[in-house]
Amino acid sequence: MPEIRIVIVGPKYEGNVGAIARSMANFNLKELYLVNPCELGDDAYRRSKHGSEVLENAVIVTSLEEAVKDCFMVVGTSGVTTKGDRNYTRVPVPVREFAEHCRGYPERIAVVFGREDIGLLQDELNMCDALVTIPTGDEYPIMNLSHAANIVMYEFFQVDSVPRRPEPADRNEKERMFDYFGDLLDAVEYPPNRRDTTSVMFRRMMGRSIPTKYEYNTIMGVLGDAAKFIKYGKPWKK
Amino acid sequence: MPEIRIVIVGPKYEGNVGAIARSMANFNLKELYLVNPCELGDDAYRRSKHGSEVLENAVIVTSLEEAVKDCFMVVGTSGVTTKGDRNYTRVPVPVREFAEHCRGYPERIAVVFGREDIGLLQDELNMCDALVTIPTGDEYPIMNLSHAANIVMYEFFQVDSVPRRPEPADRNEKERMFDYFGDLLDAVEYPPNRRDTTSVMFRRMMGRSIPTKYEYNTIMGVLGDAAKFIKYGKPWKK
Repeated sequence: MPEIRIVIVGPKYEGNVGAIARSMANFNLKELYLVNPCELGDDAYRRSKHGSEVLENAVIVTSLEEAVKDCFMVVGTSGVTTKGDRNYTRVPVPVREFAEHCRGYPERIAVVFGREDIGLLQDELNMCDALVTIPTGDEYPIMNLSHAANIVMYEFFQVDSVPRRPEPADRNEKERMFDYFGDLLDAVEYPPNRRDTTSVMFRRMMGRSIPTKYEYNTIMGVLGDAAKFIKYGKPWKK
Repeated sequence: MPEIRIVIVGPKYEGNVGAIARSMANFNLKELYLVNPCELGDDAYRRSKHGSEVLENAVIVTSLEEAVKDCFMVVGTSGVTTKGDRNYTRVPVPVREFAEHCRGYPERIAVVFGREDIGLLQDELNMCDALVTIPTGDEYPIMNLSHAANIVMYEFFQVDSVPRRPEPADRNEKERMFDYFGDLLDAVEYPPNRRDTTSVMFRRMMGRSIPTKYEYNTIMGVLGDAAKFIKYGKPWKK
């Protein structure tokens, strides 16, 4: 099982935070980060049961950015599945499939849950490398926050055998690849109004494929060369 | 998905019953039987959300026997896994494995949950045809009742659900994207001895991310433009 940090953005009900701390104890998770949470009082502690230690050690921060620092991969969760595929930032992977891809993944993963009512905001979703969802019936897909979190943790926990996988890229390398993709968009004079959406889309596609260090570096090389070729012309390489 | 009746024996907290009704609505289940439950008041209805109809139609009975009448199979749930196999009545199957065995099962199944504190009694366990459990960490295996019920329903639901995803790219579009990637490799004067492996690597990464039509087209646009920019210089676009 990869090292997993649970991040809850803007929880409004302390009971949910307590219930999530309990689930974390059920599934051997320890790191809880809360972004601008409600006040945590008796109800949170009452519901955390043997997860009270998780709750006591929860780190409270004021932005998602702070909460995912040191995490190599940021996985968002979304209850809403877009029917069309235009809003690529909302195309999620079923959580089971994603957890299975993460088998043996050696880097820390932040799993991010949004507010009870409105979930994650667009700019928070844009920070996510991948988006997972819990398949439910169509009629009423919105699950209680702590119940959704429980299923996500359960799925990661089930993937407990650890076959080797190639070393993944570290965060800096990864971000450099996305920078190079950005350079390439600039170089081809990509329409500015579509630049952000295409960047996030590319990040999501890469996130879903969980590339290794080697793969990132290789793609980075191609994209970086292409951008330089366009910018400086062929002689730059010589 | 088989027809499933959810049975809760002796629930003590109405909030749990409400939360279970909500989960049932999430997973398209309708039949809820309660054996000697606590009183169901505002808290149960508040937590049931769009599952309030399930709660209103819940059948209240005074014995497990009554609750499972008309069900062909009775499945008990247990948070406690006996280490030895002496007490055969307590040797459970992981819920995922069991749910998968039930794929296409044509008879009604009762899934029975016990009290928050002591679970199901021995004579209640004895009435069960099978016992399922949710694998958790060893240190603290006891899950909140409604969270456990939620996972069990989730597992039964996954068996027959085909994950919804947006329309994938068709083969031609996809191949065109890989052609463009090849054009780009040529344009950046990619080392010929690494060309094939890098092409396959890119194909594999894309394959793992299962891109939609829209995603393929967008990436294809960027790569194709880049290749043309390098080949023909900036004026090609005008």
